[in-house]
Amino acid sequence: MTNLRFDYAPLLPAGLPAPAAKWAGLAKYSFIGGNNDPDQVPVESLTAAATAVMTREGRTLATYGLASGPQGYLPLRDFIAGKLKHDAGMTCGADDILIVSGSLQALDLVNHSLLAAGDTVIIERDTYQGALTRLARMGVNVVGIPLDDGGLRMDALAEALADLKGRGITPKYIYTIPTVQNPTGTIMPVARRRELLALSAQYGVPIFEDDCYADLIWNGERPPALHAMDTTGAVIHIGSFSKSVAPALRVGYIVAPWEILSRMLALKTDAGSGALEQMVLAEYCVPHFATHVPKATRGLRAKLETLMAALDEQFGTAAEFDDPRGGIFLWIKLPDHVDAMRLYQAALKAGVAINPGPEWSTDKAYAGSRIRLCFASPSHDEIREGVALLADVCRQEFGVPERSANVEKHARG
Amino acid sequence: MTNLRFDYAPLLPAGLPAPAAKWAGLAKYSFIGGNNDPDQVPVESLTAAATAVMTREGRTLATYGLASGPQGYLPLRDFIAGKLKHDAGMTCGADDILIVSGSLQALDLVNHSLLAAGDTVIIERDTYQGALTRLARMGVNVVGIPLDDGGLRMDALAEALADLKGRGITPKYIYTIPTVQNPTGTIMPVARRRELLALSAQYGVPIFEDDCYADLIWNGERPPALHAMDTTGAVIHIGSFSKSVAPALRVGYIVAPWEILSRMLALKTDAGSGALEQMVLAEYCVPHFATHVPKATRGLRAKLETLMAALDEQFGTAAEFDDPRGGIFLWIKLPDHVDAMRLYQAALKAGVAINPGPEWSTDKAYAGSRIRLCFASPSHDEIREGVALLADVCRQEFGVPERSANVEKHARG
Repeated sequence: MTNLRFDYAPLLPAGLPAPAAKWAGLAKYSFIGGNNDPDQVPVESLTAAATAVMTREGRTLATYGLASGPQGYLPLRDFIAGKLKHDAGMTCGADDILIVSGSLQALDLVNHSLLAAGDTVIIERDTYQGALTRLARMGVNVVGIPLDDGGLRMDALAEALADLKGRGITPKYIYTIPTVQNPTGTIMPVARRRELLALSAQYGVPIFEDDCYADLIWNGERPPALHAMDTTGAVIHIGSFSKSVAPALRVGYIVAPWEILSRMLALKTDAGSGALEQMVLAEYCVPHFATHVPKATRGLRAKLETLMAALDEQFGTAAEFDDPRGGIFLWIKLPDHVDAMRLYQAALKAGVAINPGPEWSTDKAYAGSRIRLCFASPSHDEIREGVALLADVCRQEFGVPERSANVEKHARG
Repeated sequence: MTNLRFDYAPLLPAGLPAPAAKWAGLAKYSFIGGNNDPDQVPVESLTAAATAVMTREGRTLATYGLASGPQGYLPLRDFIAGKLKHDAGMTCGADDILIVSGSLQALDLVNHSLLAAGDTVIIERDTYQGALTRLARMGVNVVGIPLDDGGLRMDALAEALADLKGRGITPKYIYTIPTVQNPTGTIMPVARRRELLALSAQYGVPIFEDDCYADLIWNGERPPALHAMDTTGAVIHIGSFSKSVAPALRVGYIVAPWEILSRMLALKTDAGSGALEQMVLAEYCVPHFATHVPKATRGLRAKLETLMAALDEQFGTAAEFDDPRGGIFLWIKLPDHVDAMRLYQAALKAGVAINPGPEWSTDKAYAGSRIRLCFASPSHDEIREGVALLADVCRQEFGVPERSANVEKHARG
């Protein structure tokens, strides 16, 4: 194709996102994305699982949906039901679960089954970038609710719900990441979960509970899911194996009442999510998940320690953060005059990829000098080197941290 | 969740498809879907491939997109480029290829990068049901072009293009399945492909070439793809491994100029298609694909022979069909008074699943007494028993085939 003349531009519909750029490879120091630690991928056990399940059931790959139907591989749904009962107190069976291609497809299916342009949803002020971009593309209005160290603030939520009701608006859902909030790393206490469910019931607004980091808690104490505490079917719960086993395996799940799950299933026109990944995961998880997760989590905690120490050393008081309760990311406040978007661009040129706060918040001003750093993928050395380089870039662009930063000490909030 | 009171109905947006029904299992005699022959899944080689690639590269599962970026696993893209060169005369490299989660995601990405509600596209009158339902959901107008034994009829296409132009309408694409057309099983001759490309150029309308059955040709003689014969970048080409290796592996691909591929990539917000399936396929295909496909195709041809013989025996002249050039389905004309939709319902109750013609055509009247039977999944015995049962149901509902049918002989068209 040496003589490309066909012009697609006149055919493109309005509202398309900008074209993707050619992939330039991962940054040398990559603190972005849900990438995980290569050393924590349980390669041997996954390989053994692949051999076992393929030998036993490989012939079923001839059938879309295997022998399990469109909701996904039944042994995996059974495992998920058991795990959610054990870990999060949830009562659900295989029929209540829809296996999806990563929790991103879960976001799409929930959104497309409930939302139309012009609708309103309530979300956490600081939240997952992919949730924000999806809602923006759909033309949905978002109301961001401030967070504190217990997650979503109930006073602000009550106020927003009352205000919307006063204006005749029923929000379509309250989106929350209650357990290891992204990006703040908090865990919502049980009492607050109860308040949240009461507000949901009072206003007739369902809760969209995204628990995709909930397996990765340092002390292993996962509170009951909102879904577990609800008795009315008002909670749509999603989760993923991306963070706990391997992100490149695209397997997530939705747990919801059939009334709304059947709507999502009707929108899932992909002839099923990848069967091999479902089969291998189920075969692996049944014997190994419960022991793998604490081990992986210890590795993550060690990397977080390295990151926090590197920030203390390189940024001193210029980088403020709370010690998160789990997860793979740290949410950091830099001095007010640091423009996170500009820092992001300058750092990328220097080989350090970070998430600028404004992309992870409904309040661009609040997040204007905040950044998110993911610590799972880089090695301990890369974390130290990358943070040092980021400090250099920040100093060059904004004059902070000062050279003397490394003698000061950061007080954890 | 014993006391479900939350009512989602008031929250649902307009235009949702009907909720999915609970899965009732596969029909006893299933002649639907792209399901394949369990005996043809190369289980041992796929298992060996999984072990080899996981042992060598399993650690890369820690990274979304592996080390290959968002277009998909590089060794698989390299294999596809080589295969398309060898089999279909196409010139493309890994950078021109986007790996997707089955060719259904390819349909979605092509559609969403080019279409908006109210747009018009040209498609084959009889075509893949999933393409028709997607266009209907998007509110796109479809102009169906009649087919003959060489596929899309150029006289009718020229007329439609001229007519649309006269009305100031530029169709967004011409969708065609030129090589083993679904459902008719024809292969478009090279001369007609040339005519099609000329009409595409004359009217400035790109061609959307769906080659997902093109590996499965009885005599192995695959003509050059439209993409191969084009020199202007006007052809978007899609393909799949669902039919050639295993449908439950959700791996397909798009080959297109970067100008439009970059638009699709921007819409592909799923953090990559399943990595394990891509890795295993690449590892398997490099040494085995070229020998696997002819073997699988011989098995399919044998089942088709069984199906055609069973139809001759059970339906006699009441079932008219042309011997397809490849694929996994047969497109059958029943007597005019047979209502394919009613036959489909009655047959399903009797345990025989078939595709009613009206769901596979833009012309509901033309297809009203036609059905599509897939023959890859059922065994030879199931084919014979299922066709006998279908004949019984058809006789009971419509009085045909007559009891004496099995002494008459069908003349192949």
